[in-house]
Amino acid sequence: MTKKILRVGVIGCGAIGKEHIERLTNVVANTVVVAVYDYFEEVAQSVAAKYQIEAAPSGEALIAREDIDAILITSTDDTHAGYVFEALKFKKYIFCEKPLALTAEECQEMMAKEVQIGKRLIQVGFNRRFDIGYREMKQAIQAGEIGEPLLIHSAHRNISQAAGFKTDYAITRVAIHEIDITRWLLDEEYEEVQVLTVKQSRKTSGDWLNPQLVMFKTRSGQRIDVEVQTDGAYAYDIQCQVVGEDGTLNLPDPARVLKRASGHYTYGLTDHWAKRFIDSYDTEFKEWAASVLKEKLVGPSAWDGYVSCVVADRLIQSRISGEAEKIELIEKADIY
Amino acid sequence: MTKKILRVGVIGCGAIGKEHIERLTNVVANTVVVAVYDYFEEVAQSVAAKYQIEAAPSGEALIAREDIDAILITSTDDTHAGYVFEALKFKKYIFCEKPLALTAEECQEMMAKEVQIGKRLIQVGFNRRFDIGYREMKQAIQAGEIGEPLLIHSAHRNISQAAGFKTDYAITRVAIHEIDITRWLLDEEYEEVQVLTVKQSRKTSGDWLNPQLVMFKTRSGQRIDVEVQTDGAYAYDIQCQVVGEDGTLNLPDPARVLKRASGHYTYGLTDHWAKRFIDSYDTEFKEWAASVLKEKLVGPSAWDGYVSCVVADRLIQSRISGEAEKIELIEKADIY
Amino acid sequence: MTKKILRVGVIGCGAIGKEHIERLTNVVANTVVVAVYDYFEEVAQSVAAKYQIEAAPSGEALIAREDIDAILITSTDDTHAGYVFEALKFKKYIFCEKPLALTAEECQEMMAKEVQIGKRLIQVGFNRRFDIGYREMKQAIQAGEIGEPLLIHSAHRNISQAAGFKTDYAITRVAIHEIDITRWLLDEEYEEVQVLTVKQSRKTSGDWLNPQLVMFKTRSGQRIDVEVQTDGAYAYDIQCQVVGEDGTLNLPDPARVLKRASGHYTYGLTDHWAKRFIDSYDTEFKEWAASVLKEKLVGPSAWDGYVSCVVADRLIQSRISGEAEKIELIEKADIY
Amino acid sequence: MTKKILRVGVIGCGAIGKEHIERLTNVVANTVVVAVYDYFEEVAQSVAAKYQIEAAPSGEALIAREDIDAILITSTDDTHAGYVFEALKFKKYIFCEKPLALTAEECQEMMAKEVQIGKRLIQVGFNRRFDIGYREMKQAIQAGEIGEPLLIHSAHRNISQAAGFKTDYAITRVAIHEIDITRWLLDEEYEEVQVLTVKQSRKTSGDWLNPQLVMFKTRSGQRIDVEVQTDGAYAYDIQCQVVGEDGTLNLPDPARVLKRASGHYTYGLTDHWAKRFIDSYDTEFKEWAASVLKEKLVGPSAWDGYVSCVVADRLIQSRISGEAEKIELIEKADIY
Repeated sequence: MTKKILRVGVIGCGAIGKEHIERLTNVVANTVVVAVYDYFEEVAQSVAAKYQIEAAPSGEALIAREDIDAILITSTDDTHAGYVFEALKFKKYIFCEKPLALTAEECQEMMAKEVQIGKRLIQVGFNRRFDIGYREMKQAIQAGEIGEPLLIHSAHRNISQAAGFKTDYAITRVAIHEIDITRWLLDEEYEEVQVLTVKQSRKTSGDWLNPQLVMFKTRSGQRIDVEVQTDGAYAYDIQCQVVGEDGTLNLPDPARVLKRASGHYTYGLTDHWAKRFIDSYDTEFKEWAASVLKEKLVGPSAWDGYVSCVVADRLIQSRISGEAEKIELIEKADIY
Repeated sequence: MTKKILRVGVIGCGAIGKEHIERLTNVVANTVVVAVYDYFEEVAQSVAAKYQIEAAPSGEALIAREDIDAILITSTDDTHAGYVFEALKFKKYIFCEKPLALTAEECQEMMAKEVQIGKRLIQVGFNRRFDIGYREMKQAIQAGEIGEPLLIHSAHRNISQAAGFKTDYAITRVAIHEIDITRWLLDEEYEEVQVLTVKQSRKTSGDWLNPQLVMFKTRSGQRIDVEVQTDGAYAYDIQCQVVGEDGTLNLPDPARVLKRASGHYTYGLTDHWAKRFIDSYDTEFKEWAASVLKEKLVGPSAWDGYVSCVVADRLIQSRISGEAEKIELIEKADIY
Repeated sequence: MTKKILRVGVIGCGAIGKEHIERLTNVVANTVVVAVYDYFEEVAQSVAAKYQIEAAPSGEALIAREDIDAILITSTDDTHAGYVFEALKFKKYIFCEKPLALTAEECQEMMAKEVQIGKRLIQVGFNRRFDIGYREMKQAIQAGEIGEPLLIHSAHRNISQAAGFKTDYAITRVAIHEIDITRWLLDEEYEEVQVLTVKQSRKTSGDWLNPQLVMFKTRSGQRIDVEVQTDGAYAYDIQCQVVGEDGTLNLPDPARVLKRASGHYTYGLTDHWAKRFIDSYDTEFKEWAASVLKEKLVGPSAWDGYVSCVVADRLIQSRISGEAEKIELIEKADIY
Repeated sequence: MTKKILRVGVIGCGAIGKEHIERLTNVVANTVVVAVYDYFEEVAQSVAAKYQIEAAPSGEALIAREDIDAILITSTDDTHAGYVFEALKFKKYIFCEKPLALTAEECQEMMAKEVQIGKRLIQVGFNRRFDIGYREMKQAIQAGEIGEPLLIHSAHRNISQAAGFKTDYAITRVAIHEIDITRWLLDEEYEEVQVLTVKQSRKTSGDWLNPQLVMFKTRSGQRIDVEVQTDGAYAYDIQCQVVGEDGTLNLPDPARVLKRASGHYTYGLTDHWAKRFIDSYDTEFKEWAASVLKEKLVGPSAWDGYVSCVVADRLIQSRISGEAEKIELIEKADIY
């Protein structure tokens, strides 16, 4: 019996890191986690003990191990770029949670290295592309079921945020998903983006702006509105309606038991992104593992990480300027 | 047996005029149509013959009749104001289809006359306020079920338009309904409005812009987006989602039989506003008749007609200027 | 101005009688209530005073009045047949709330009189045939949209019943609607019917059986199951699914505003038949009035009243016998 | 790095066998297929070649291998019992697709052996117990959300059947799922079951009866109706409504993109059980593998296989006798 197994090293053992380690160990077939690293040594030790694997003394040491084929980066946002560059030195496959980097310039540098190496090594953690609902929408669009898409109405609603949340995070950590999924659905780049101020909710738990209304315009003139509620919402609820010349497509709610009781028809909504999109995370890693084993990445690329950096940056600028801001991108290399 | 009956004269026997005459005669209890007038004499004659009533030689003659208590104006848009002024002279109750006038100035003049008379005589035909769905939404908002409303996402989609349709009509004849219903739902006036250009649909049957994306901002900062498809849509479809601090409310589709066949779950949508909102028209006239018989109008007023004129004018200007335009209103008299 | 008006006399001013008097006076166009009678004189007087009409000294006196064209019978069930026979003597049009009579024999006698007179005068108050949902289902069936119907799954759920309710009433006052609407939907007569005992609900407010499961088999072999909850249900809820060779049709819930709040998607259900079916009652009387004015009845006939008597009787027998019971009908006269 | 892996041998490489081999190899973590056997040697060889594993010369040889911990039996129905008995000799864990055996007597004998061994080794492939929808229903019932369950209305609709299908299979291969899932949902055994004949569908592709209406009555008096369409249906569609004293629960349709186009609202239904329940199969094997690794089976047991045999047998008898048939069960051993 021989079975090809992907050997992964994980940098960052926080909440999402732990979840991915469990996923790679017990949900995704044909992957193993060989070693982990965390800035807090005892955290790494504890995770390593639980799975009877090794805790590496540093991210660099972990990256350098010969028994590791691919690196999963789920450390804090500001450390992503550094580990990506390190892993690129070893030409190892990289799965990096969003954001790929804090600046568009770093993303450009990563792409330059990939071009030099001659192939993609980086995948960015835009999990929604693996959600069955978004995929069915994209298939329907590509099959021409609604003609040319003209507008998208979407909403991203959260129940709460951790302490330390800031207004900018509404873009960089929340709307970042719509920045990516919208251009993926439409297969278009943006020309112009804007943040509009909105009457504020009493349910905002901190001093950040909530809600915000985010607008995109694509190069072909499609308009997208994204309502962003960072906290206080009735559920973790993601809505997306693509309006085409011949019809519309709506992202469905997850299937839940339909109840009739106490004078109402009702079904439950999810309260957390981890529940809402659990299947998409599983699929994301299954497909990533399969593509790495085939040595042919197909998921969200460094280019996608780059564009989302540029767009997020312009949206934050728009909130400050009060104006629509133009999107300017470098030329896309052939490997993307 | 005595029964108080409202005696109505109708000016304008076009499609909607005919429908309202039938409604006043055979659907609404306690109303009769006494006489009709139309610019085309033979049209008026034919309608009069059908219902065994009189055809008046002119709108003015009809208005002056002592056996008529109230005037229904459904003639062409440019003639509305003239007939309203004439009817006001006789202090008769007036039901005027939208728009109340072509200019805000005329609306102001009408309001001045009503103030002078000391009470409302004019009701404007914003039928959606009588739709059971919008009413349930307003009740829920007023009952605090979703906290303070913060945004509204809405869409107004049409299958086709008559020849001669123009880009401006997307505002004055189509979005005019959202101009009114939104401020009614929110009980707020607008501060700023804007028209955004959108990628155009191949299904537009003439040379007008379609779709357009209309944005309102209320004085308290609520944001409203209105997708306006004037033609080519998959159905006559009206969507409205009010987003509040504690939840959202969606206008429901009309109840239709739910079918499972050929691999799909499906139900039918309506193809025409007259079908979609038939109940609202019936209710509109029932309540108007009842309020006139009680001599206390409660439906959409000349003030509502005035505001919609101002807003429509600014939206058209916004489309030309490419900028958001401010809304400035006169002071509202106490009778409204 | 001339307008043909239907002059109605009402026997029985209880809850439903009052509702119909209001309906005939202020909702249905072209009908007036001329006089009313009730067993309790002061009730009749009070209703007469409210509408400024006359209170008749007896049902017979009311029926005999020359200024009354049609009789509406909404008195207690045991008095229906007597008033129907009296009205038939005067060849007056009759609208009789269900049941038409307490025995099938009386219904046969009424039909014999109609046949003798040569036309239908009687309409029975099976209001569901006028519900827009059931009508759309019947149209779809007749249009062949689901092929031949093979089964129907239905449920009739009530929140409460008045004191004095008895087990038999679950058939004669509750399932009676499904007895009628099912054969109307399928255009078939029953061959065999059965009542099955079911685990009882703690929410039953009296000493009657609740729920009961009622089964029909039509002459062509279609099977129908009707869950009957007489009280304790979460809402007044009527469900009906017709299963055909090519698909299924479901009666829709009434359109209600769709809310998302507190972690749930929800919409309200109705709590009373009068709300659930209000439109059907309005339509029932509009169409009845129109058909009487045209002297051509088309609504539920004495035959329908007869069949429902026979079936209800066999169902009650089945509950006692514990067996399926055969349905045997007389031959149907040509006028039905 | 050490990771405990479950080593499985598979008997039967037909359609469902192949699917499970793929599942155990590439979907379920921590399981490997070590060897396979099929009655047709070349089939086993081809599967073995694809996965680079061994083809065993016989089911018995495969069962006897020391490097195999558990046996998956997906061979033809008539061979299940033989392999189960053989595997029991070696005290190996067994996953047997339904039916566990052709006769209740064989099931009793298997249970006797398990009791002798002192623990459960057998799990039967009732996959619906692992479906997220049914599980949410059971949780809601157990949490008392709808009070005591009183009735279940369910439907099992298929598009087609393979050649050679027989009337009895409507019970043994189709309704068998409802036999199991209903008693699992209610945590009750049946007292009486019945098959009712129904008007036949023109879409039946062979000479078997279709549809059939199956009725269960539990020991506490709950009534269950199961509409069974073996072929010709509009989709592979499974419906289940549990009616309790305080409300109802409906199994939801799988979440699919919601489309509005061509005058209709619509979403797709699945056309095959393998798609409809794909997640349940994945979960079934994940949980089975985890429970075997913990040496504590929790899925459907030999008792469940036994009861379904008894009930299926009585239903077939009922179809022949035209009567309701009593269910009589042996006493349940403590290990179940």
